[in-house]
Amino acid sequence: MMFETLYSTMKRSERIQKENAAMNLKEDDILVPLDVPKAERENYIHNYLAITQNCGRLMLFAGDQKVEHLNSDFYGEGIHPDDGNPEHLFRIASQANIGVFATQLGLIARYGSSYADVPYLVKLNSRTNLVKTSQSDPFSNQWLDVQQVVDFRKNSGLNILAVGYTVYLGSEYEPEMLHQAAQIISHAHQHGLISVLWVYPRGKAVADEKDPHLIAGATGAAACLGSDFVKVNYPKKEDCASKEIFKEAVMAAGRTKVVCAGGSSDDVEGFLERLYDQIHVSGASGNATGRNIHQKALKEAIRMCNAIYAITVDGKTVNEAMKIYTAA
Amino acid sequence: MMFETLYSTMKRSERIQKENAAMNLKEDDILVPLDVPKAERENYIHNYLAITQNCGRLMLFAGDQKVEHLNSDFYGEGIHPDDGNPEHLFRIASQANIGVFATQLGLIARYGSSYADVPYLVKLNSRTNLVKTSQSDPFSNQWLDVQQVVDFRKNSGLNILAVGYTVYLGSEYEPEMLHQAAQIISHAHQHGLISVLWVYPRGKAVADEKDPHLIAGATGAAACLGSDFVKVNYPKKEDCASKEIFKEAVMAAGRTKVVCAGGSSDDVEGFLERLYDQIHVSGASGNATGRNIHQKALKEAIRMCNAIYAITVDGKTVNEAMKIYTAA
Amino acid sequence: MMFETLYSTMKRSERIQKENAAMNLKEDDILVPLDVPKAERENYIHNYLAITQNCGRLMLFAGDQKVEHLNSDFYGEGIHPDDGNPEHLFRIASQANIGVFATQLGLIARYGSSYADVPYLVKLNSRTNLVKTSQSDPFSNQWLDVQQVVDFRKNSGLNILAVGYTVYLGSEYEPEMLHQAAQIISHAHQHGLISVLWVYPRGKAVADEKDPHLIAGATGAAACLGSDFVKVNYPKKEDCASKEIFKEAVMAAGRTKVVCAGGSSDDVEGFLERLYDQIHVSGASGNATGRNIHQKALKEAIRMCNAIYAITVDGKTVNEAMKIYTAA
Amino acid sequence: MMFETLYSTMKRSERIQKENAAMNLKEDDILVPLDVPKAERENYIHNYLAITQNCGRLMLFAGDQKVEHLNSDFYGEGIHPDDGNPEHLFRIASQANIGVFATQLGLIARYGSSYADVPYLVKLNSRTNLVKTSQSDPFSNQWLDVQQVVDFRKNSGLNILAVGYTVYLGSEYEPEMLHQAAQIISHAHQHGLISVLWVYPRGKAVADEKDPHLIAGATGAAACLGSDFVKVNYPKKEDCASKEIFKEAVMAAGRTKVVCAGGSSDDVEGFLERLYDQIHVSGASGNATGRNIHQKALKEAIRMCNAIYAITVDGKTVNEAMKIYTAA
Amino acid sequence: MMFETLYSTMKRSERIQKENAAMNLKEDDILVPLDVPKAERENYIHNYLAITQNCGRLMLFAGDQKVEHLNSDFYGEGIHPDDGNPEHLFRIASQANIGVFATQLGLIARYGSSYADVPYLVKLNSRTNLVKTSQSDPFSNQWLDVQQVVDFRKNSGLNILAVGYTVYLGSEYEPEMLHQAAQIISHAHQHGLISVLWVYPRGKAVADEKDPHLIAGATGAAACLGSDFVKVNYPKKEDCASKEIFKEAVMAAGRTKVVCAGGSSDDVEGFLERLYDQIHVSGASGNATGRNIHQKALKEAIRMCNAIYAITVDGKTVNEAMKIYTAA
Repeated sequence: MMFETLYSTMKRSERIQKENAAMNLKEDDILVPLDVPKAERENYIHNYLAITQNCGRLMLFAGDQKVEHLNSDFYGEGIHPDDGNPEHLFRIASQANIGVFATQLGLIARYGSSYADVPYLVKLNSRTNLVKTSQSDPFSNQWLDVQQVVDFRKNSGLNILAVGYTVYLGSEYEPEMLHQAAQIISHAHQHGLISVLWVYPRGKAVADEKDPHLIAGATGAAACLGSDFVKVNYPKKEDCASKEIFKEAVMAAGRTKVVCAGGSSDDVEGFLERLYDQIHVSGASGNATGRNIHQKALKEAIRMCNAIYAITVDGKTVNEAMKIYTAA
Repeated sequence: MMFETLYSTMKRSERIQKENAAMNLKEDDILVPLDVPKAERENYIHNYLAITQNCGRLMLFAGDQKVEHLNSDFYGEGIHPDDGNPEHLFRIASQANIGVFATQLGLIARYGSSYADVPYLVKLNSRTNLVKTSQSDPFSNQWLDVQQVVDFRKNSGLNILAVGYTVYLGSEYEPEMLHQAAQIISHAHQHGLISVLWVYPRGKAVADEKDPHLIAGATGAAACLGSDFVKVNYPKKEDCASKEIFKEAVMAAGRTKVVCAGGSSDDVEGFLERLYDQIHVSGASGNATGRNIHQKALKEAIRMCNAIYAITVDGKTVNEAMKIYTAA
Repeated sequence: MMFETLYSTMKRSERIQKENAAMNLKEDDILVPLDVPKAERENYIHNYLAITQNCGRLMLFAGDQKVEHLNSDFYGEGIHPDDGNPEHLFRIASQANIGVFATQLGLIARYGSSYADVPYLVKLNSRTNLVKTSQSDPFSNQWLDVQQVVDFRKNSGLNILAVGYTVYLGSEYEPEMLHQAAQIISHAHQHGLISVLWVYPRGKAVADEKDPHLIAGATGAAACLGSDFVKVNYPKKEDCASKEIFKEAVMAAGRTKVVCAGGSSDDVEGFLERLYDQIHVSGASGNATGRNIHQKALKEAIRMCNAIYAITVDGKTVNEAMKIYTAA
Repeated sequence: MMFETLYSTMKRSERIQKENAAMNLKEDDILVPLDVPKAERENYIHNYLAITQNCGRLMLFAGDQKVEHLNSDFYGEGIHPDDGNPEHLFRIASQANIGVFATQLGLIARYGSSYADVPYLVKLNSRTNLVKTSQSDPFSNQWLDVQQVVDFRKNSGLNILAVGYTVYLGSEYEPEMLHQAAQIISHAHQHGLISVLWVYPRGKAVADEKDPHLIAGATGAAACLGSDFVKVNYPKKEDCASKEIFKEAVMAAGRTKVVCAGGSSDDVEGFLERLYDQIHVSGASGNATGRNIHQKALKEAIRMCNAIYAITVDGKTVNEAMKIYTAA
Repeated sequence: MMFETLYSTMKRSERIQKENAAMNLKEDDILVPLDVPKAERENYIHNYLAITQNCGRLMLFAGDQKVEHLNSDFYGEGIHPDDGNPEHLFRIASQANIGVFATQLGLIARYGSSYADVPYLVKLNSRTNLVKTSQSDPFSNQWLDVQQVVDFRKNSGLNILAVGYTVYLGSEYEPEMLHQAAQIISHAHQHGLISVLWVYPRGKAVADEKDPHLIAGATGAAACLGSDFVKVNYPKKEDCASKEIFKEAVMAAGRTKVVCAGGSSDDVEGFLERLYDQIHVSGASGNATGRNIHQKALKEAIRMCNAIYAITVDGKTVNEAMKIYTAA
């Protein structure tokens, strides 16, 4: 407990330095995709080590839902009032242990000067959930291009490591999203940035979004698109252990790393166990977690974040992580 | 009264100078978003101070309805004949106290030489209301890009402070509008211009456009898009005080400032009270008012505008504002 | 009569010189919109004076219907055989008094060398009338951009004063047409060219295309788009005098000038009376006339054109104009 | 006969030289459209004289149907086996008398080195006939732009005289095709190339594709688009002689030249008579013929081609042409 | 057997050298399409010889199905577990005899550094099979353009010989795919790259995708598009021998080379016989094979690949090829 309390009072840079000392991933261990220009290889490696905290696994704190779910993730029953203000996300990202904080450029531009040492991922597309699939298949359109992110990184001096994009496979708008995704990854690599795809099968043509075989199709498609990381939903199938059937997706992704969410947060221990299993049983390389963190009050959110980080990055057990979470 | 009469005979520049002397917002108080290039920071700050009259709150006089509502807002029963001529808008904008006058570039180009000292916001998209949602979801397409506004500002020498754009969340055309909005804000900031989004949930998928939770979703989305200001409709919910439920939207917007309209103008005092409450109860940062001003005869319109300004910018009470409005 | 006969044998340039001597609109009287660059102000003024024959009113001879109405306006019962050949239009434009002749660039490119002294307006979009509104809302797509017109003007040495574009308000394709219209006007002004919009409410959403309030919406929208002239249909309403109810549209257009057609040509005198009333009662600034001129044999067409011109430009009465028309 | 046999053994260049000696169209007779830059006037004139074999009339050998009709025009009952191989088209184009051979750039690129002296027209759009109008209105999309043709001409050294494009008037995709057509003609003229439009009324809105008035609308539209030549179908109307009712279309086209097909090839003499009448009665300026030539065995196809050429270019009678066709 | 075993232990470059010594296709035998610039002719010839292993026939190992069929081709009953990992494809491509390995750039970028001597074809479009034709016609959108492939080739130093693209003829999206295909082939040739089209008739309008006449239409369309190779499905028709009816398609393709798949892999000998017949009876120039190779365990997959290669490139009999396949 003391450690954790002490820890959170350290400056982010000191914390990272400290952690890195205990890490063992070296520059030569990073497989740089060949569409990264030679002049950007070092940047790519630097960004990759930073986003994975030198361990190859990614703890992505997802804070892009203010468009995706409008205010429903941030205000209402069961959500701490802290979460109603977008600054809550930045406070967590700044004070907790994370690999990267993913959100839209607009928020980063507005809060970045106050939270300059957060490692950022710019989410390049977003849509609201107002139009349901029964009315029209989902299309999440690109807002900005990678060059604008690169210019922003330069102008702001912020620590931007990555870009992200969501693809809805099986949507009637899939063709346009596949094109945008491929272009974004290509351009991200041109500038040494890491790419993360969120790939969800969704649309009138998709009967079961959690089907393990379909999820494996999603990670495989992300690999073909050249993404460095792909975030998918945890597969579900009657009479099957998700951690087992998830292996197909991890294998299908090949050298593209798979991250996943832990599901509902009603039960923190269960959540952490799922994360642990995803990594140690299924072979996932981390997680992307949003609501399960930010819907809590700031201090609890930070402890939750740190617990997730402990499993993902520090290789801790669920018990050890629970101690971090429950520390007063 | 005398003051007001005297006041309106002063040149605009003198008036602003006088007002600014009593203001207290300084350059250092302005939080410049990080997508504003260093070379444009001063321009952004200047535009921000000008548009908010050094007080951080915005009194936006909206005059873009000649497309949105065709001639229905300008001619007919209950509308003063003065309003049938578009010059009426410019006369008000020039003689009354405002933060900025929002209209389409075409009108500004035609009247700007006669009304050179008006602070302008160029509204970049517009649509008519002929096609109803039951036929097709609303799409308001971009007319001009920011570079054309910048070129126009330079060529005309006009006092253009900002650009505006309307997004219909929940429309089937939402993806294209989100893209255009993000690009416009990015380009506006590139040139030190202030951005204002009008965000309205609208479309077959939207059951209740005034739902407070949905309005909060709208302001949050505007924050993610990086807008400096967002104009939304005042939420309404049975058995709830609008001024209370509006707080959710103001909080969700974070550092993006929220402005609102006061509703129907049948009752000026009620209108002003709503504006006052929006600012002092809900936490809004101003208002965007159109019809409630320009449908009146010129002199009354100016007094109405000044009353709104008094509450928004000068921090006056409703009683004080009513005195301005009713001054002969 | 003699005058008219004599007159038509004079070279165009001599005629214009003669007319101008009697005119009184000076360069300083022209209000140049502020999106015209300083370097192009003189060109704009020159084009404006030329297109309005120094009187501020426009006599536009419309010859773009070979696409809009295919061959139905040019061949068949009640149409003189002269009209079957497109050269008929150029002969009229060259020999009659007009402000400008509006047609597609393709025809101008083919006949321009034979009719080099005609003042031209290049109509930039056109569609056929084959697809009815019941099948699909109207969309008239841009064919060429303004830069191509400017290059053509330079290469051909032709007297190109203006560009034109049609917008169907209330069509499901309105968003794209508003965008194209705004861009064309912006680019036209960049090059000192005059812009003319044809604005027609049309589509499944439009119940009454001639409603005076809707027509006023159309002229107001044209003003917001920044057009120099807007051509609308003459409003019609039961128990109302068109010349009276048309005033709303003229007022709504503000500084954008309104032109109109006179309706059916069965009765020339009635047609000319309507034109006269549009100008002297409603306040219109001219007319756009096509079929009522070109469906006649060459000589009659020229006399008809000159009669219209006499009212529009020379301020003649209907009686005086009828004498021109009936001159043998 | 002997002449014809002898003739076909001469090199193409010698043949053309010989023919030209007997021709009488001079450079000064060519009306160059004014969108052809001065620097390209000579090229345009050269191409025009070449494509019309110095006589102003066009014999266009059409070989673009491998996409339009897939393999149905090239293989099956009643079609000579020679026609199954695309090289058959090039053999005909090379050995027979033609004005120009129209086909897609892909085929020209592959066979051009073997058939370097053929005069080529690059057809810039094509579609298959699989989707019927009852399912969706026809849209033939542009494949390549004129600049690519110009680059290809330079790189290949081939004798490329013209470009072609098909427009389906009355299709719901008409707006896009009109845009593409206008752009292609503009760019073709920029580079001194001749333009040929195929204009067919087609779509759910078109009841009678062969209606003479509609065909006249088609040629008029082509004139407005600025095309040098327009190919239409031969009109048909009960109790009317096609050669008479076709005059309306020729007149409507003005200075744009009209070419036509002769219809079914069951009866060669009837076919040639129709071509003769189109030219000498209706006033057409040539023909575009495909299947009626290439579905025959090579030698017969060449004789057929030469017969058509004799009528079109050499001003021969039907009897004289039949002698060429039937020569053993 | 021994040879084969020995052979597979040789380095790829040695193997190719050895094979080439026995080949007889010379640089002068290659017909370079005329849209290949002179400066790129040598590269084109080099790539053509390499992709066809100096024999003019293509053995294309297809590994792009991770998007097209998601994970269904790679995991499940009857598929060897090796195939679940995308690296399996690269292992085969690296260790077996092939002309070229076709897959998406994303995978090549990720595995290329480990498999640097594989000859690659970059597949430029892909779609999932989730949306069925009954819901919407197929559209496979371009992901990247040729310039990005060229930049990638330069940056990576990989042996990229070709690009590929799929066209669905008869789809309502055919117009867009024909445009993209034409552009890709044009740009590929600009850079000396070989182009391969996959052309499948598919959509609501297509009743029988395997109709031989339709397949011939597909190869003819590919020829018009200028593709170097076209992959089609093997035609099927009741009471007809596929190898006979396939001749129509080979002839219709002219100088564009046709490749085909052998069908289901249940029976390897039958599969190889079909390939043999396609080449030696129908006149095809090779094959494109995917699942029939990669669904096997690595060693068997390599032997299968080598057996196919032996027939395609080395001119071996089915018996000889079977010996290669069954070698332990």
